[in-house]
Amino acid sequence: MSTTRRGYVRGAGMACAGMFMEAAASTAAESPDLLSLFAKRQSVRRYKPDPVPQEHLTRILDAARRAPTSGNQQPWKFLVVRDPAKIAAMKARCLQSYESRLLELPEDKRVARRREIEKSAGGYFSAPVYVVVLTDSQSEYPSYNHHDGPLAAGYLMLAARALGYGTVYITDAIPEKVTREVLAIPDRYQRVCITPIGMPESWPEPKAKKKLEELVAYETL
Amino acid sequence: MSTTRRGYVRGAGMACAGMFMEAAASTAAESPDLLSLFAKRQSVRRYKPDPVPQEHLTRILDAARRAPTSGNQQPWKFLVVRDPAKIAAMKARCLQSYESRLLELPEDKRVARRREIEKSAGGYFSAPVYVVVLTDSQSEYPSYNHHDGPLAAGYLMLAARALGYGTVYITDAIPEKVTREVLAIPDRYQRVCITPIGMPESWPEPKAKKKLEELVAYETL
Repeated sequence: MSTTRRGYVRGAGMACAGMFMEAAASTAAESPDLLSLFAKRQSVRRYKPDPVPQEHLTRILDAARRAPTSGNQQPWKFLVVRDPAKIAAMKARCLQSYESRLLELPEDKRVARRREIEKSAGGYFSAPVYVVVLTDSQSEYPSYNHHDGPLAAGYLMLAARALGYGTVYITDAIPEKVTREVLAIPDRYQRVCITPIGMPESWPEPKAKKKLEELVAYETL
Repeated sequence: MSTTRRGYVRGAGMACAGMFMEAAASTAAESPDLLSLFAKRQSVRRYKPDPVPQEHLTRILDAARRAPTSGNQQPWKFLVVRDPAKIAAMKARCLQSYESRLLELPEDKRVARRREIEKSAGGYFSAPVYVVVLTDSQSEYPSYNHHDGPLAAGYLMLAARALGYGTVYITDAIPEKVTREVLAIPDRYQRVCITPIGMPESWPEPKAKKKLEELVAYETL
C-alpha cells in the first residue's frame, strides 16, 4: 500500500471540504479560442534562432507545473538548456550515436543517409532553448510518475503554442543517454522527454489524423 | 529497432518538407486567456447531475485526439460511459473492492472509514459521463503508448475545463480491474485513466503548489 494513494479514503476529505467552499475559480464560458489551441500545436523540427524571452519561458514553465499530478506530488524537474556549447555537444553526441545504425546499412547507402541524418539533427538542434522534462524517483508516489511526466510535458507544449512557439516531444531522436551524459543528469531523475522551444522556421503542414469516430466508442468497445 | 522510430531518419524528410511549405497554422498572439486555463483546471470529486451536451463532449474528445503522439500513431480509444446502470455497477464493484482494505483496520475503525469511503464514492460517481482513456497494445509503436496515453488525457481535461467542466485523473481510486470487468474492455487495450466529466458541485479550493523555482533548473541540476 505504501505507494498507492487510497484514492477513496484520501478523496473523502477533499470532496467533503469542497462542498462547503465557495467556488475558487470562475467557470470559463465556452471559448472556441481555447479549443482551437489543441489542433494548432504541431511537432516542429526546425527553428529560427530568435531567443525566447525569459518572461515567455517562465509563463510556459508555470503552465507545465499546473498539470494533474498524483496526490499533488509534483514530481517534476524542468531542466532548461540555452548554453550553445551544451546544445552543440548534445548534437555531436547524437550524431555519434547514430553512426552505429549507419553501419547496419549497405555501404553505398550510408553517405546519403548520413546527409539526411545531419540535416535532421540540424533541425532538431536549431532552437534557442531546450527543456528536459524529468521526474524524481524520490517523489512521494514514484509509481505514478509515468502519468505525471507526460502530463506536464503536454501542458508545457500547449502553453508554448499559446505564445506562438513550436515544440516537439522528443524521446529516442535525442537518446536519454546523450542528455544524461552531456547535462550530467543525476540517476535519481528519469527523463520523460526533451523539447526545443522556439519560433518555427515554418509551421509544418497538419498531419493526417484518424477520424474521431475511429477513436471514440460509446458504452462498449 | 522494430518499435523505435529512428527519429532522425524519419524526421529528416518532415523537417525538409516543412521548409518549403507556407505556414499551415497562424501564429497565436500572446494570450493570457489561454494561459489562465492551465491554472484553472482542478481535480473535481463531486458533480452536479446536469448532462453534458453531446456537442460539448464531441469538442472535448476532438481536442484529446490532437495530443502529441509518437510517429502520429494515435493509439487511443476513448470509451464514453453515460449509462446509469454501468455507472452504478462500477460504483458497487469499487465499494466491494475496498472491503478487503477495511479488514486491514481495527474493527472499531471500520464503520467510520466505510462511511468515508461511501461518501467519497458518492462523489466520484456523481457525474453524468465518464471517459475511460485507453491505448491499443496493437498500435504502430506500442512501446510509446505510455507517453501518448497521459498526453491525450491531459488534453481532454484541459478542453473540458475550457468549456467549464470539471474532471479528475483517476487511476487506483477506480481500479482498472473494475472498469475492465464492468465495461468488458478487451485485453488488447490498456487503461490510462478514467475521468468523470461534469459541472462541479463546487470548484475546490486551489491546492498548494510548489514554487516554480523548486521545479526549474537552468543549465544544470
